[in-house]
Amino acid sequence: MQHEYLARAERIMQRIQQLAAISEEADGVTRTFGTPAFLEGRDLVQRWLEAAGLPTRVDGIGNLRARLESRNPDAKTFVLASHIDTVVNAGKFDGPLGVLMGLDLLEQLIEQKADLPFHIELIAFSDEEGVRFHTTYLGSQVVTGAFDHALLARTDAAGVTLDQALTIMGGDASQLALDAIPAAEWLGYFEMHIEQGPVLWERNVPVALVTAIAGQQRVELVFRGMAGHAGTVPMAMRQDALCAAAEFVLTAEQFAQAHGQGLVATVGKLNISHAASNVIPGEVTCTLDLRSPNQAQLADAYRALLNFAEGLAAPRNVELVWKLVQQTAPVACSQPLNDLLGQAITETGYETISLVSGAGHDAVPVSAVAPATMLFIRCYKGISHNPLEDVELPDLAAAIAVADRFISLLRTQTPTR
Amino acid sequence: MQHEYLARAERIMQRIQQLAAISEEADGVTRTFGTPAFLEGRDLVQRWLEAAGLPTRVDGIGNLRARLESRNPDAKTFVLASHIDTVVNAGKFDGPLGVLMGLDLLEQLIEQKADLPFHIELIAFSDEEGVRFHTTYLGSQVVTGAFDHALLARTDAAGVTLDQALTIMGGDASQLALDAIPAAEWLGYFEMHIEQGPVLWERNVPVALVTAIAGQQRVELVFRGMAGHAGTVPMAMRQDALCAAAEFVLTAEQFAQAHGQGLVATVGKLNISHAASNVIPGEVTCTLDLRSPNQAQLADAYRALLNFAEGLAAPRNVELVWKLVQQTAPVACSQPLNDLLGQAITETGYETISLVSGAGHDAVPVSAVAPATMLFIRCYKGISHNPLEDVELPDLAAAIAVADRFISLLRTQTPTR
Repeated sequence: MQHEYLARAERIMQRIQQLAAISEEADGVTRTFGTPAFLEGRDLVQRWLEAAGLPTRVDGIGNLRARLESRNPDAKTFVLASHIDTVVNAGKFDGPLGVLMGLDLLEQLIEQKADLPFHIELIAFSDEEGVRFHTTYLGSQVVTGAFDHALLARTDAAGVTLDQALTIMGGDASQLALDAIPAAEWLGYFEMHIEQGPVLWERNVPVALVTAIAGQQRVELVFRGMAGHAGTVPMAMRQDALCAAAEFVLTAEQFAQAHGQGLVATVGKLNISHAASNVIPGEVTCTLDLRSPNQAQLADAYRALLNFAEGLAAPRNVELVWKLVQQTAPVACSQPLNDLLGQAITETGYETISLVSGAGHDAVPVSAVAPATMLFIRCYKGISHNPLEDVELPDLAAAIAVADRFISLLRTQTPTR
Repeated sequence: MQHEYLARAERIMQRIQQLAAISEEADGVTRTFGTPAFLEGRDLVQRWLEAAGLPTRVDGIGNLRARLESRNPDAKTFVLASHIDTVVNAGKFDGPLGVLMGLDLLEQLIEQKADLPFHIELIAFSDEEGVRFHTTYLGSQVVTGAFDHALLARTDAAGVTLDQALTIMGGDASQLALDAIPAAEWLGYFEMHIEQGPVLWERNVPVALVTAIAGQQRVELVFRGMAGHAGTVPMAMRQDALCAAAEFVLTAEQFAQAHGQGLVATVGKLNISHAASNVIPGEVTCTLDLRSPNQAQLADAYRALLNFAEGLAAPRNVELVWKLVQQTAPVACSQPLNDLLGQAITETGYETISLVSGAGHDAVPVSAVAPATMLFIRCYKGISHNPLEDVELPDLAAAIAVADRFISLLRTQTPTR
């Protein structure tokens, strides 16, 4: 049994390596939406699906979709999915792992000639990362019927619109509405994905269930003080924009530390205008990335940090410009699905760890139409979006065993006529 | 009397404008050492000196020098000086003001047919800012005999050595040793200069005497933590290099505020490697500029901030690299000259304010061979190294009156045979 999961894990790893060899650039993995490397990678996955005996199709937005049909006349559709586009200079696992684990799971079911009470649709989403058109979830927005046609006019860095890109890659913008799975047909959604964080790595546990996907608020701040000579302006007469920004950086850190419960705050960019070692910083621009699985907590944190920023800038005679540039609401995963997933983890013999996903996933748009959850898989030091991304074979084998058990449990709990 | 000083101030202002019109670039004033604009500017000042009846010469390093000879056989030389090179995109006053006020002062003495007990040498230093060869005080180092001939091999951005630059601009490296004023011949040194700081502007007092020129230590720091996903790494597991750097920025500020007495600390540059709004900063490089007129205080502050930096980095699991990249010792101005200068300010009717110069000046190398002091002149908002640099006419008139009085007092106190 353990040997069998390890053998399946090894085959998934071989496919991960084969797919990762297809890249726009030699270093790392780069397969952004709609590029020749992306299409070549999707073709490879499609050949694997068809070799497994699954009928496949590519939909209007470029999602690769395969179905294992149930004979149950009341069957709804349970979606297994992840994405096969990547960021620039990505790792091998973020996205492809969930698709190839889904393929492996279907291969087992086909081999077992399993008659499930639900259809399984395996989807390799074409665009989750949103690198090319500065969007996210293009693929899953189409599948959930949430696609906004205004996005077709968006252009990439080369000036190509999404509409044109779809034509070039063999997609079809006019068919997008037909590619949605109607809300009544959804049974649920399950995505397997590397954690992209260090919790499982540190605790040495192979998997975790995801209880929620954090909402996010991204702010751009400008602190505007007065530049001056580092030698000649007395400390008491300064309007140092960097000192104001530094106070904000530490305030955000301390606030998130004190409030816990999945709240994280990060200042990731900070730029001093006309910086020189002997000039007091006159203007500093920085970002704030604030995330929480709890909408009220997120809103409270946002207001509190805005107040803190105003409160620290004023006595320094530093002007503050605060601009909200992006926000997404938190999404809770399905409690019934998580009950089953927790049971599957326990029965497979692992500690059940519940995590909040700080990163966004296709489960966010799916949650609007169907019960959704995710299984996180332990990854090397929590590193992602980096060629160092890695997963250990025993962890992958454990995740396969949990996924098998989860589908078994789902099967027994789904009514049939 | 007041009218007379205003008229002299107006003439100085006209010359300031004429000289400022000579620039390497159309915006602001740029006359870096040895460039055609620099030589053209120096020629203009030389014509003014000669029109006043002063014999002039250009020495080996390109300093413009004029002498008003005394008939006293025991006469020593009192040097009035400032510089006529500029930084890039400079203002009109930093340097030229002192030279042109010296010219005005000599014009008065010539008109009065004054017989002084000392020679006056007016020097327009060729290189104080050090922009071109990343040096400072080239001009005054030659005049004080402190010039290091190894500097002749230094190259500018175009690969031209200082030696070659001197040949091209009509200087003479082989004569530099002969251009020094022997230590025994110095009576003293006096430089008039804009404050480059906001104290006089805020207090609305036209002039100040300078008691010392701050020593400086410049440090480059690297904080090396661990980059990570802003959404997925819990606050407690982070090694955020920016939070460490922010703590250092505020520690340096608070330390300098608490210790006062001319100690200033500035973090002027701060750079996050591979910064992105959704990435926890893994590496931050920043600078520390630390200045004090007191050597012991400077050394104590340096050690204390190094200890603070180590102490804050360690519990964050952030590595610290601390590198001292530049240091100069503080220089005290001459107490006897400052007694006279204070008397001149009082007798002219102004409040006597004593300031420490946080910026370096040619008085630093001169202090090694002769009593030296400086008069600071109020400038617009303390702004310098910027086209906004400005001086108000009444302040300039006040400074002229103080300088006249100072030379009168020096005259009565200098023994003659």
